[in-house]
Amino acid sequence: MILIDISMDISHGMPVYRGREDKRPILRIERDFTSGDVYEARIHMDTHTGTHVDAPLHMVRNGAPVNKIAPDKLVTKCRVIDMTAVNEKIKREDLEGKGIKKGEFILLKTKNSIKEDILEKDFIYLDATGAEYLKETGVAGVGTDGLGIERNQPSHITHRTLMEAGIVIIEGLRLREAEEGEYLLSAAPIKLYGAEAAPARALLLRDLPAL
Amino acid sequence: MILIDISMDISHGMPVYRGREDKRPILRIERDFTSGDVYEARIHMDTHTGTHVDAPLHMVRNGAPVNKIAPDKLVTKCRVIDMTAVNEKIKREDLEGKGIKKGEFILLKTKNSIKEDILEKDFIYLDATGAEYLKETGVAGVGTDGLGIERNQPSHITHRTLMEAGIVIIEGLRLREAEEGEYLLSAAPIKLYGAEAAPARALLLRDLPAL
Repeated sequence: MILIDISMDISHGMPVYRGREDKRPILRIERDFTSGDVYEARIHMDTHTGTHVDAPLHMVRNGAPVNKIAPDKLVTKCRVIDMTAVNEKIKREDLEGKGIKKGEFILLKTKNSIKEDILEKDFIYLDATGAEYLKETGVAGVGTDGLGIERNQPSHITHRTLMEAGIVIIEGLRLREAEEGEYLLSAAPIKLYGAEAAPARALLLRDLPAL
Repeated sequence: MILIDISMDISHGMPVYRGREDKRPILRIERDFTSGDVYEARIHMDTHTGTHVDAPLHMVRNGAPVNKIAPDKLVTKCRVIDMTAVNEKIKREDLEGKGIKKGEFILLKTKNSIKEDILEKDFIYLDATGAEYLKETGVAGVGTDGLGIERNQPSHITHRTLMEAGIVIIEGLRLREAEEGEYLLSAAPIKLYGAEAAPARALLLRDLPAL
């Protein structure tokens, strides 16, 4: 089996949305070997830390929380699409001609996966026309290597367009090692009851065992 | 594809190790729709919350942290073994005769998966003789439906025996829906850099797509 890890490390110094200090995760050591024989820590982090799944509740009043997204929506065939030639934002015309089909889960590989220095503020995002195209096409889900799937758009229009169409959103993927093509995506998030988002360990699998 | 979710919900009222209040997760809402158009929360939780992977650092000085466990150790064939007849603890003689082989990843289904009321304090655990047997057999990993793989043993001997043998440990599985048999386990934890444990969304897969 081939396995590609497409997740971010979670640490205090990791890239965080817009570089905001109050969004940094903190791993607090509660016990260690100086005072006993066990090491134990507690993590304090935004639900949108690193690689994570957004649920409708993030942007839609009374929207579904993340524990209500069935895991088979996130453990599913997917296709990595190379968008590394795109600058600033992915528009409708960048997606047309990629052969995107109804029901597909697509992962958009952009310069975000190559250039670490754009991740906090100038990341490539999916604009409103691109979101509208994915809604019209009827994709099942979309994954981005930006920490947000959009920035600087009024009313968070990309999020809302996707969420209202029932399209699952994964943010913060690391796709540098992922070539274009089909994989089994495994990216079900931890089961934070009632939360609007949750971190996930996202992996791409191929050459699956017979089971 | 068949998918069985074997993970616990993470919430303030969930079962926690020995029922200790300071181990309860807290989901703190940072923003909601009363003051804006976005809902955002922050999670404060022990790294050993719910379904999670223990890394050697938890019990072994200078042991490996959880981000150093290769994900293919946790996305792998596994076998669910029915141990629901066992009371109090799983011993060597309970494991003998189960046909456990070198290199297997076994998930031990016990009364913990059936009786919620024993989860915090009186959970079934793997005793030192059982751990020694798994070490001799050379299993790759072991998953338990207890919040700890042991309790009330001097020097955390079960943890140490397994960790020193390089056997991966998953705790806090929910195996009620999982029949005995082979599956693809997907249980890679979130990538908490430098931590001694991390929560995972654990799933069992069967009838995998051709990919």
